[in-house]
Amino acid sequence: MEDSNKRLEWGKTTWKLLSEIRTQSPLIQCITNFVSMDLMANTLLSAGASPAMVHSVEEIPDFTPRVSALCINVGTLSPDSLPAMITAAKLCSQLDIPWVLDPVAVSASAFRFKACVQLVIFKPTVIRGNASEIIALSSSYQSSASAAKGVDSTHDSMDAVEAAKLLAHISGSIVAVSGATDIVTDGYQVVGAHNGVPLMQKITATGCSVTALIAAFVAVDKSHALDAAVSALSVFGIAGELGMKMAKGPASLRMHLIDALYGLDEATLQSHVNITSLC
Amino acid sequence: MEDSNKRLEWGKTTWKLLSEIRTQSPLIQCITNFVSMDLMANTLLSAGASPAMVHSVEEIPDFTPRVSALCINVGTLSPDSLPAMITAAKLCSQLDIPWVLDPVAVSASAFRFKACVQLVIFKPTVIRGNASEIIALSSSYQSSASAAKGVDSTHDSMDAVEAAKLLAHISGSIVAVSGATDIVTDGYQVVGAHNGVPLMQKITATGCSVTALIAAFVAVDKSHALDAAVSALSVFGIAGELGMKMAKGPASLRMHLIDALYGLDEATLQSHVNITSLC
Amino acid sequence: MEDSNKRLEWGKTTWKLLSEIRTQSPLIQCITNFVSMDLMANTLLSAGASPAMVHSVEEIPDFTPRVSALCINVGTLSPDSLPAMITAAKLCSQLDIPWVLDPVAVSASAFRFKACVQLVIFKPTVIRGNASEIIALSSSYQSSASAAKGVDSTHDSMDAVEAAKLLAHISGSIVAVSGATDIVTDGYQVVGAHNGVPLMQKITATGCSVTALIAAFVAVDKSHALDAAVSALSVFGIAGELGMKMAKGPASLRMHLIDALYGLDEATLQSHVNITSLC
Repeated sequence: MEDSNKRLEWGKTTWKLLSEIRTQSPLIQCITNFVSMDLMANTLLSAGASPAMVHSVEEIPDFTPRVSALCINVGTLSPDSLPAMITAAKLCSQLDIPWVLDPVAVSASAFRFKACVQLVIFKPTVIRGNASEIIALSSSYQSSASAAKGVDSTHDSMDAVEAAKLLAHISGSIVAVSGATDIVTDGYQVVGAHNGVPLMQKITATGCSVTALIAAFVAVDKSHALDAAVSALSVFGIAGELGMKMAKGPASLRMHLIDALYGLDEATLQSHVNITSLC
Repeated sequence: MEDSNKRLEWGKTTWKLLSEIRTQSPLIQCITNFVSMDLMANTLLSAGASPAMVHSVEEIPDFTPRVSALCINVGTLSPDSLPAMITAAKLCSQLDIPWVLDPVAVSASAFRFKACVQLVIFKPTVIRGNASEIIALSSSYQSSASAAKGVDSTHDSMDAVEAAKLLAHISGSIVAVSGATDIVTDGYQVVGAHNGVPLMQKITATGCSVTALIAAFVAVDKSHALDAAVSALSVFGIAGELGMKMAKGPASLRMHLIDALYGLDEATLQSHVNITSLC
Repeated sequence: MEDSNKRLEWGKTTWKLLSEIRTQSPLIQCITNFVSMDLMANTLLSAGASPAMVHSVEEIPDFTPRVSALCINVGTLSPDSLPAMITAAKLCSQLDIPWVLDPVAVSASAFRFKACVQLVIFKPTVIRGNASEIIALSSSYQSSASAAKGVDSTHDSMDAVEAAKLLAHISGSIVAVSGATDIVTDGYQVVGAHNGVPLMQKITATGCSVTALIAAFVAVDKSHALDAAVSALSVFGIAGELGMKMAKGPASLRMHLIDALYGLDEATLQSHVNITSLC
């Protein structure tokens, strides 16, 4: 009984936030890797947001103060792009603009690891990664270390619950871990979004794109970042579920997912939202 | 009577230019933003042109003199990419190679605004933007200023007619403004292309891609740049209209648009071209 | 009789290698041009490999030693990206990690030509280009010179057989030439893969993507790089043939090709493989 009430409640919250995005069309700045730009921009557009891939440090003092949220993704990090990320994150932190960090393949190099730790200092509203990334990033605040081989997770999201809680405590950020179940925590509460299909992992930049979608959701309700993050993960997963009905492989899934996100209506969303408290 | 004759005339002009692109396969150099590269290259290929995303300043003196047209887009401008743009624009200007400027989000920063003004000095054959961009760029030559928030237009194209005419007069360029009606002017004559569908705005880089398509059209008839620009806008819009018949959202529209552009035949094009004199 | 046995043999080899990729999910580092990143990553994912677009010189000493193969593509070369390519190629050469070079538009500039010649010194396992690129690169070791206009080939692959053999002899690399018939040579043996459809050339980055696929095939059998390269070319061509059955133009072909690559089963692959000895 309580469960079905809670689920209804999540359905309403999620629809309200998506509707706000469609009405307000929040401007979302993305400083992201080159692989993800196309799908990320199309994800934001199809959700109703207005993406802007502005990543030059010269433009940030003029541009960033005007955005509704910022998404930083270290996927193709370089010494050239890091100062822009730091400048933008700092500005958002000072101006109380929500921002989201995607520590893609944080263990790929010492350079990248250090950059992510440095960015966390500017208190992202949300940090979203896969289990391996969150475990690795969290481990920097512990004595033990952990390494993943590349951008794909070698851990299940449920393995990362404790790491995510620790990272949330230390950073003051909401931490989201993508996986079969997406988990989101503020360090105390742990909520799970059980939407999505496995084939989404065979499309490049789906993880990056859902992080940008989290930025759009947080943009329209920054005082409830946990709810916004879990709603974004659920909505993206639902778009995947709907797309899967017509997909014949990863490329057609990608197309149908974006179409589904664009066309998502209240009844369909409400009947598909599957968000639960995990502890 | 005159109207239907004029429309027939435009149908012939547009088909002639598209056929020339398919026959000559003009080499189009694109110095463009990272978000647009995929769709821009595929747009050019499906129209029959040969795209080359060569953007390193080291390569421009060797490469640019060999191209049929150049497309410069400031979408992800950086201090690193600006010298390449200036060098290439200058070369084209000196060698009488047509080139097209897309001042994406010109108001995003003072750095970007200044860069666009600097590029206009090298007299682009065509400048193509949305209404907000053209109004903002044109305003730099007036006393009043105007700002837009991001890459998406907050103005209707018809609001930009006077700004476009002024910009055309001052720059010596053909100026094209995308919108529900695409308008093109040489500062005196104003022509409108009434093709396209609203959903095209929900696909990232459609504006950037039609600018590249203008470059391909101008490449095969540089002495009639106004006709070439309006033809390109009409053809891209028609591809959108044809694609829309099968689309279920922005991602499938993107696919069907490119397929339609590739397969566009004379009869279909002639029956869809909707170009009129506006004044 | 011998022919049909040979063909069966190639079918088995090709299936074995594709199955190995799906099982092992080799980590493939790509230092590639910005146009190709999306399709290349999706090609690798749909084949079962794990792509990582890590291209910063700061990350290479940490990251490259862990990869199963490396793909270097000079499509949007810049003075910034060249040191990363050289560092990574050198490391792979020292650590006996297979790596593949795609000399895209090698004749676009003296800067690019020199960069490719410099990279060849680190002995790529495979060099893959179109006929114009292989002829141009090979010519650097001869007295005569040859130039191509852009990224699209102006030669047929069969014109490049002698150039490919010479390049293979001098470089010690397997050399693959894409075309109506893809040819692969170690300088002595010449093998042809007769799969694929012409429309694939109207999709940007198909050439780049098949080079990355060659890297994935070589990753799982580096001691038989010729077999691996020709198998990759055949598999990609077969995916194109299967995709073509449902395609209505280049954009839908792109989608169906990736779907087909993902879903390719043993019987379909075996019945489509068309690899023969050419001399």
